[in-house]
Amino acid sequence: MQTAVFLVQCPDQKGLVSRISTFFYERAFNILHCQQHTDVPTERYFMRLVIDLADLRTSRQQLEAEFTAFGVPLGLEWSVHYPDPPQRVGILVTKASHCLYDLLVRQREGELQCEIPVIIGNHPDLETVANQFRVPFQCLPVTAATKAAQESQVQELLRQHHVDLVVMARYMQILSGDFVDAWGGRLINIHHAFLPGFKGARPYHQAYDRGVKMIGATAHYATSDLDEGPIIEQDVVRVTHEDTPAELSRIGSDIERVVLARAVKAHLEHRIIITGRKTIVFS
Amino acid sequence: MQTAVFLVQCPDQKGLVSRISTFFYERAFNILHCQQHTDVPTERYFMRLVIDLADLRTSRQQLEAEFTAFGVPLGLEWSVHYPDPPQRVGILVTKASHCLYDLLVRQREGELQCEIPVIIGNHPDLETVANQFRVPFQCLPVTAATKAAQESQVQELLRQHHVDLVVMARYMQILSGDFVDAWGGRLINIHHAFLPGFKGARPYHQAYDRGVKMIGATAHYATSDLDEGPIIEQDVVRVTHEDTPAELSRIGSDIERVVLARAVKAHLEHRIIITGRKTIVFS
Amino acid sequence: MQTAVFLVQCPDQKGLVSRISTFFYERAFNILHCQQHTDVPTERYFMRLVIDLADLRTSRQQLEAEFTAFGVPLGLEWSVHYPDPPQRVGILVTKASHCLYDLLVRQREGELQCEIPVIIGNHPDLETVANQFRVPFQCLPVTAATKAAQESQVQELLRQHHVDLVVMARYMQILSGDFVDAWGGRLINIHHAFLPGFKGARPYHQAYDRGVKMIGATAHYATSDLDEGPIIEQDVVRVTHEDTPAELSRIGSDIERVVLARAVKAHLEHRIIITGRKTIVFS
Amino acid sequence: MQTAVFLVQCPDQKGLVSRISTFFYERAFNILHCQQHTDVPTERYFMRLVIDLADLRTSRQQLEAEFTAFGVPLGLEWSVHYPDPPQRVGILVTKASHCLYDLLVRQREGELQCEIPVIIGNHPDLETVANQFRVPFQCLPVTAATKAAQESQVQELLRQHHVDLVVMARYMQILSGDFVDAWGGRLINIHHAFLPGFKGARPYHQAYDRGVKMIGATAHYATSDLDEGPIIEQDVVRVTHEDTPAELSRIGSDIERVVLARAVKAHLEHRIIITGRKTIVFS
Repeated sequence: MQTAVFLVQCPDQKGLVSRISTFFYERAFNILHCQQHTDVPTERYFMRLVIDLADLRTSRQQLEAEFTAFGVPLGLEWSVHYPDPPQRVGILVTKASHCLYDLLVRQREGELQCEIPVIIGNHPDLETVANQFRVPFQCLPVTAATKAAQESQVQELLRQHHVDLVVMARYMQILSGDFVDAWGGRLINIHHAFLPGFKGARPYHQAYDRGVKMIGATAHYATSDLDEGPIIEQDVVRVTHEDTPAELSRIGSDIERVVLARAVKAHLEHRIIITGRKTIVFS
Repeated sequence: MQTAVFLVQCPDQKGLVSRISTFFYERAFNILHCQQHTDVPTERYFMRLVIDLADLRTSRQQLEAEFTAFGVPLGLEWSVHYPDPPQRVGILVTKASHCLYDLLVRQREGELQCEIPVIIGNHPDLETVANQFRVPFQCLPVTAATKAAQESQVQELLRQHHVDLVVMARYMQILSGDFVDAWGGRLINIHHAFLPGFKGARPYHQAYDRGVKMIGATAHYATSDLDEGPIIEQDVVRVTHEDTPAELSRIGSDIERVVLARAVKAHLEHRIIITGRKTIVFS
Repeated sequence: MQTAVFLVQCPDQKGLVSRISTFFYERAFNILHCQQHTDVPTERYFMRLVIDLADLRTSRQQLEAEFTAFGVPLGLEWSVHYPDPPQRVGILVTKASHCLYDLLVRQREGELQCEIPVIIGNHPDLETVANQFRVPFQCLPVTAATKAAQESQVQELLRQHHVDLVVMARYMQILSGDFVDAWGGRLINIHHAFLPGFKGARPYHQAYDRGVKMIGATAHYATSDLDEGPIIEQDVVRVTHEDTPAELSRIGSDIERVVLARAVKAHLEHRIIITGRKTIVFS
Repeated sequence: MQTAVFLVQCPDQKGLVSRISTFFYERAFNILHCQQHTDVPTERYFMRLVIDLADLRTSRQQLEAEFTAFGVPLGLEWSVHYPDPPQRVGILVTKASHCLYDLLVRQREGELQCEIPVIIGNHPDLETVANQFRVPFQCLPVTAATKAAQESQVQELLRQHHVDLVVMARYMQILSGDFVDAWGGRLINIHHAFLPGFKGARPYHQAYDRGVKMIGATAHYATSDLDEGPIIEQDVVRVTHEDTPAELSRIGSDIERVVLARAVKAHLEHRIIITGRKTIVFS
């Protein structure tokens, strides 16, 4: 079944469910899913609505024009997402392969509905993994001196491949504010700790030194404020005093890959609305 | 805030969100929550809708009459639930105190919004617990010979106390089909295993003998087919070869009380719709 | 079965298992459990050893004297714990009842093997809970001006009741360094967040503002460095954007009580060795 | 560090820790890990002991001969496992790729310390996956008529490749009793349900029909009694009424791969002792 997803937000007011759903009912659409959330402190309303595209009697363009006109008096901000063309995901990596393997396998198995046109590494190590899955790999090394130039190259590559979403699959570089801003809301990072627990470098060593009994991982949209972007997904796993930093890292890698995959999947399915520094993730 | 909850089901058809939400919008109600589910195999639609009672301009009776008339052409089956009078929960127990304590504490702390007018035990052991919380306790022992008579007494007591929901908090008796049918959809049992894993007696011994690595608990509506009623909630906990049946039982009791409390809370908040032998539990 | 628990630590060296276990074998003791841990970075060895007291042919005093002499060449630091007299736990509370209820119920049910001779509140609210379980309650209000005097009274009460372990069951006061030092390793606090996530006040509001997808709780030994004491136990639970700070607090309270109970149980069963700012918790 | 693992079991008796550890201490071995378990009902004792092979002053053969002689009066049954040669794992598959991918990736990343010399499929679908990782793939189709002959071919292939452990990575065939017996304790299967929940075929459809709130997976040693072999590892994940059988299957596949990987890892690290129809899995 071909579906379109509307993500909507506006000031909270009476009658929103009725008025929005009636817009689609009047045009003979079957509403397959309709989820809502009201953020009480900010009095803001959010809706995710899935319709059956088989019911479309006009063009997508005309539907959008009518919905735009309809939304003005309500103060709607919205976006609509069609199943075609497929979304294109660019992946940034360094040396650790587990998240990259996981994304490639899930895409191959059809769990992640997207294309992966390019993998960019700042080290050459993962070219062999890219080759296994026949995905073009570009090695763009980076030093403090070449950072700006390298980021331009990365940007250019992502543009050339018509990338819609960038995933930092354990990319161990801090991207510039300009880069991050350019990909606002379309750049997902996996942080190998349960935020806001251990920020910054070597969180598994921090966890070991602190003697925590659980470790975790956090997938979030990247913002210029490092490790402070809107959280999409988190999970944890139990550890003990027996686990060395190396073992914590291995145990953690299992959580990292699952958390990142869930976040990417939610993004690709248009189940996320960013609001301020938080996300609404519809189930 | 005073709210009313509508639980609705009907054959799936176009326009249900629009038509139902518009019914309330036309009467100037603010819809606080609106959740839906479509069961595709049976083509059946379910909705839970919460409105602000402060918007009620007529009587409850008139609102219900209008909704009845409105629902006929759609084939609606529905119920509405008001915050008053508070629901009354009767608890059946035997000897194990952990679930009873848990329900009493959560009710006392306001997490379970209900009254607990009576506790009935087929053994006298838990009268002291009832006394601690100043809840009337009735001991109604039962043998094979007195089973029918005892159940009549239980029924009579529940009626006298205007009980709306009966909770079997580790009540180690099998209730008759007549009793269960009389309380259909209003009788919750906690089974001390992860159904459909270990049915019947001594599930922790069964779990030990089988060498499972996790044990669990299942809260379900009781039906005449033992351990086969609609499941409301389940959870599990990890165990090891070190755990004896006695330790499994103690570890399991922690899961039992949490699972039972969540199920009772979901029922009291009118978040459950029973359909066939399954439940829809809105979050 | 009556057992004694030896908690042992020393510099790592060859033959420790053999030499220590042989000490007990030569005295005809049955070793019921023997668990070890070697901390590689510090080259330190830890052992927990449980013996059957029925095998004791001499006095406890003589056994201890012999083990002392035995341990000198190995550099052993050790303690031994007998089942009698029962340990005595004093509980500090403020207004929130859930952890207090939980400890009282688990003690009553025999899960926590201890006596609870006194509950001290800096507010009068929980006297009714103490009364339900027939435990003496003392209200010792505290202000900035009376803090030192009040702590002296608390100390005096704990001494009078021969308290072995103090549990801060959501006691919303920061104890002085002197108090904390006096109870080093015998003072357990429950912090209502997943440390080192949200330190300090109102962690559930912090969690809401940050938009985390899981919340947690941490039980730790209190030290003069607030929220930095050795962690004993942690756990988390999944939350969503739907959960308000009030709901996070309620959801979190379920984790708090379980985490605190597990930590107190581990302490009472002599399964914890503190080393630096970390704990070894034998399973 | 090169280590050897001793797995030991015998009737429970006094002095086992002392006597066994002293055997190694007298030969100047450093004991790196020593874990024990006593099964009280059967009065049987189990030990896993890891020694540093760098301390070996004689030959492996002589050490084994001495340990054999030492063990006779104690009634020891034991095995010893050296790090070389690396263990060889043969994988049986049908059409589902997720478990196969997972094993290959973890082996490639060094998490699973083994070689994978051959993958055998009863369908040709997964040859491409095998090719990605440069592992020989053999397609051996099977029908009711050719079952015995096909199993002989599978056996022959496993022998040719000197396979130590066979993993059924969603191999959708029931192996004969002869085959299973020949690989007793060296044949791991992943069952896509939380045993003993839904045995037999299509467990995700069974789970959907029953309306369970969690689904799981179970890794176990295969025995001739289907789905009744000793359980090695289990895990579960929460689901809701929204999840169709297809979605349950996808959600479940994430648990299947993790559970299977943990079981294979435990086996490869010699952390499992089978006793009767249960396993002891040392952590």
